[in-house]
This record gives sequence, C-alpha cells and structure tokens, in this order.
Amino acid sequence: MDRLIDAIDAKENPSVVGLDPTPALLPEPLLASVREETPSNQAAALADAYVAFNAAIIDAVKDVVPAVKPQIAMYEALGVSGIDAYVRTAATAQRAGLYVLGDVKRGDIGSTAAAYASHLSGLPGFGQTAATPDLWHEDAVTVNPYLGTDGITPFVDAATAHDKDLFVLVRTSNPSSSELQDLDAEGTAISDRVGDLVERWGAQTRGKHGYSRVGAVVGATHPDDGRRLRARLPHTFFLVPGFGAQGGTAADIVPMFDAQGHGAIVNSSRGIIGAWRNDPAAAGVTDTTQALDLVATAARRAALAMKATITTELEKSLGN
Amino acid sequence: MDRLIDAIDAKENPSVVGLDPTPALLPEPLLASVREETPSNQAAALADAYVAFNAAIIDAVKDVVPAVKPQIAMYEALGVSGIDAYVRTAATAQRAGLYVLGDVKRGDIGSTAAAYASHLSGLPGFGQTAATPDLWHEDAVTVNPYLGTDGITPFVDAATAHDKDLFVLVRTSNPSSSELQDLDAEGTAISDRVGDLVERWGAQTRGKHGYSRVGAVVGATHPDDGRRLRARLPHTFFLVPGFGAQGGTAADIVPMFDAQGHGAIVNSSRGIIGAWRNDPAAAGVTDTTQALDLVATAARRAALAMKATITTELEKSLGN
Repeated sequence: MDRLIDAIDAKENPSVVGLDPTPALLPEPLLASVREETPSNQAAALADAYVAFNAAIIDAVKDVVPAVKPQIAMYEALGVSGIDAYVRTAATAQRAGLYVLGDVKRGDIGSTAAAYASHLSGLPGFGQTAATPDLWHEDAVTVNPYLGTDGITPFVDAATAHDKDLFVLVRTSNPSSSELQDLDAEGTAISDRVGDLVERWGAQTRGKHGYSRVGAVVGATHPDDGRRLRARLPHTFFLVPGFGAQGGTAADIVPMFDAQGHGAIVNSSRGIIGAWRNDPAAAGVTDTTQALDLVATAARRAALAMKATITTELEKSLGN
Repeated sequence: MDRLIDAIDAKENPSVVGLDPTPALLPEPLLASVREETPSNQAAALADAYVAFNAAIIDAVKDVVPAVKPQIAMYEALGVSGIDAYVRTAATAQRAGLYVLGDVKRGDIGSTAAAYASHLSGLPGFGQTAATPDLWHEDAVTVNPYLGTDGITPFVDAATAHDKDLFVLVRTSNPSSSELQDLDAEGTAISDRVGDLVERWGAQTRGKHGYSRVGAVVGATHPDDGRRLRARLPHTFFLVPGFGAQGGTAADIVPMFDAQGHGAIVNSSRGIIGAWRNDPAAAGVTDTTQALDLVATAARRAALAMKATITTELEKSLGN
C-alpha cells in the first residue's frame, strides 16, 4: 500500500475519482455521434466516447488526486469494446502518473482466483519467455470475500510479487448490505469477521507506513461501523465509497481515518465526473471539444472542492 | 429456469461441461503456435487457441449435454482478447443449441449491479432505437450475494425480461468456503440464510417445472449441506460444481436432486475438456487438426461416461 500512501501524501489529498461513465453522465455532443451508429455499432461508439470523456477528466485532475477508480461494470455493460475502453482508460491514467484502483469485485475459488489475479500479475510466464505483459494496467483491484481464504491468497501473492494491492469488501455502502454483513455470527458481526480475515491475509505484507497490501472497502454510509473497524483493523487501509451521491457526508468519513489523519482514501464518482451538469454553461455546449472542456473544468473544480472538504474536516477532527 | 430444465429433459442428462481452458489443458500443437509469438502477442494467440479448443469440444458434446459453463476468469487472464474469446465461445455454443451458463460471479451495488446485468439484457436501449444487441451470449450468469438484495434485483429483472436465469453462490465447493458460509448467524448457517434469500429473490419467477429463475450454486463437496439445502429450498434449482477433479463423487451429488431426480445440474470441467490427456494417442499427435480431433473424441467419451455415471446413480437412489 506504500505507493498509494506516498501518492496521497504527495498530493496532500486522500481522495480518489471514480471513473464510472454512463450514457446519462455524457454531454449531448458525445452522445450524438453514438446515436448515429447502427444498433450493432453503438456499444463500440459509446466505448470510444467513454475513453474520450475519461481522458479529459484524467488530464484535468492528475495534479489534484493521487488515484482513479474505474468501475469495470460500467464498461462491461458494453461488452468486449467496453472492456477495451476500461483497459485504455487504466493505461491513460497510469501514464498520467495516477494509481489505478480497478473496482472489479472479483472472487472465485483457488485456481480460478489465480486466473483473476492476472489483473495484477499480467499474463503468467508462457513458453520460452519470462516476460509478463501487463494486460489490465491496474495498481490494485477490489475482491469479494464470500469464498474465503483460498479465493484471496492468489491476489495477495500477485500483489506481493508485483508491488500492487487489493481491497476486500468488508462493509459495503448500499442499503441491503446489512442483510449479511450485519449478522451476528457466533458473537461477532460478519463484517468484523471479514475484517479480521483481512488483517490476517495482509499480515505478511505490511509496508513502511504500517499498512498491509490487503485493504478493506468500508462504506461512508456506515460511520459507526467505520469507527469500530478502524480500531479493530490497525494495519488495514480503507477504501471508502459512498461519499456524496450515496449520502455519506464529510463528517461521516472522519472515523475511517487513523489518529494521524491517514489510513483511508475516499471515493467520489458522480460528484466529480458529472459535475459539469451543474454548470450553467452546459446548456450552450454544441460540439465535442467544448463538451470535453466543460467536463474537464467542472471535474477539476469539483475534485479541488472535495479535497478541501475532506482535509478541512480531517484537520478539524485532528485539532480536537 | 424452464429452458434449462427442458434442455436437460431432452438430452436426459443433468450435466454441464465447464469450458475453463488453461495452457496446461491444451495439446502441444495448439501451444506451439502461441510460443512462436512475441510476448505482447501471446495473449491474443492463446485466446485464439482457446476458441479453437472450445469449438472442437462444443461440436463433440452438443448432442450429449444440455449446457456449457465457460468460466470467465480463464479468459479474463488474457485481457481484452481473452474476453473476446469468451464471447466468441459463448456465441458458438448458443449457435450449437446449447444453454450457456456464464460463470462470472459478478456482484455489486444497485446501479453498478444493473450495469453488470447487461450480461443478460444486452446494451440497454440507447438513443432512437429500442434494439438491444446481445453482447455476451449467455443464458444465465452466476452472482455473488455478499452485497445483499440490491445487488441481486437488477439481475432478476434482466433475467425475467429476457427469459434468462441466474445462479447465486450459496455453498461453494472450495475448502475455505466454510470460513464464512458455515458460520452460525443468529441460529442459522450463513449458507442457509443466503439460500432463504435466494428463495425470496426468485419467488415471483417460478416456471412450469416449479423452479424459479434464481438458482443456487451448491458444491458437490458438501453433500450434507446439499441435502439440507435441497429440503429447505424447494423452488431453487442447483448448479453443482466440484464433481470429479475437486473430489465430489457420484454418490455426493444425489442429495442435490429432488425426489423425482430433477432440480440440479452437475458441472465437470477438467474431467471432460482435459480427458484427452489420458488417451494413449496423445503422445503421437503432431499437428493441430489431429490434436483437436483427439480433444473432441476424448471429451465426447468423457461426457457420455459422466452422463452414465450420474443417471445410474440417480436411478439407483430413486429405486430405493
């Protein structure tokens, strides 16, 4: 986790921009060219529009945030050309110096989990060559814990071998997350049990900042759970979704951080990439270049505002 | 689930072939052409080899089995070209009249789960057209329940709208599955609680055979759990992995079926697609055509043997 924490320190900003495009988040000029395509070509055209949209945002926020988090589902909805757009987006972000957190929520049993771990390791050495071309351009991925240790170990091994990280779902931000994650299992909430497993999975991978390569996803919509988990998992770095559009406030995210104001990174997606919709200039945009300029300017402004909100709230809490 | 059950009845065979290729499962002539490529082209070459390998198997078993189950992780390990090979494989199987069960184990929160549900629904109506081109060529997908109801509902809606199905992970076949799934949560095992949710999620989608569109994954390695879940979930069709290579025996899978010998389908991957490795002729194969013939012949023989094993065991248990 050291690379991510160093990047947060360098930018003085523990926030990450979620690159989760949908048609509704694209300005009209970008959609117009997609609509002109025949139905069988629309997915590929929309994928190209996502790449252009993301590239404008990446360029606008690359000196503000340490990381981006593309949500692969949004790309997977467009089939193979969507996956290609995901990889192109990740590669663009890495070239811009950003840490790429692939929100893929994969998880399967042993040998299958090992195949998924190629997200971090590249194509395993094949034939005469030891070369492992990077196929996904991710610095970390999110992983689902329902299958237990042997679904996680291959990711930990790949992360360790390639100086990358993973984030395991512990307490997700959605309303029905409580159905399983809140259950009392033999005296301990399921989310706490998963948290304990996360500490164990990461135990051999602690870095110079004291956090392991195995982070946890803890939603901003559950500040009490966050406070409890923060105390319970001292070596686990938190990825905190649910801020903004999903209802998590700046006060809600404070308990996710440690006593020094470290130990967590907060995600915002729609609040940043859809910020252009609140700009009065949006109505007057008529071509793609204007539209991408508007998207970029609004995203940068929103990313700076988010940085200010979070750092102000953290300083307030540390000052207390 | 009616389409799958009708296909099982027509073939008189409740088994599915797992199309989970790995380099180790390909005969040498198929690998030779991959090795000749530069490292950056090997993933695409291997993806093409997977498509040829799968096509030979699909053609050989299409009149024996009702369904195939490609495991997307094996393809995802090859990046974008692997995903393309997955979709080409699925399309080939559907053209051969097979039900395609995409083993993708996706799962996320509300709007993101809706994006993943495009696996079943195609690209949501976009622009002026109501056309929804099928991007994935799957008849069902597997889904992870850790995020609760709002991660599942979009899949149920898509399945209902497009006459497709989903299978939720309930009790997986791997050793460490017990870490979470076996926990006693307020008097009920987690796997039973998830099973109860599955019955609820499927309640409005029961078909003519009495089973809903929301099936459950229950590993053959846990026959006692299978027996308990079979009784507890009368409207839930089971997908049963873990037979063969993972240790599940013919006797172990009997409890997964209902009193009429219906209600479940058993998967075998390596036992079918890697059967060629046990053929003495394997050593003498020198070109790709011979290799694919060998793979096909051995896969067909193994698929017929599996059908005989399962149906004999089921008849024995029904006769008791």
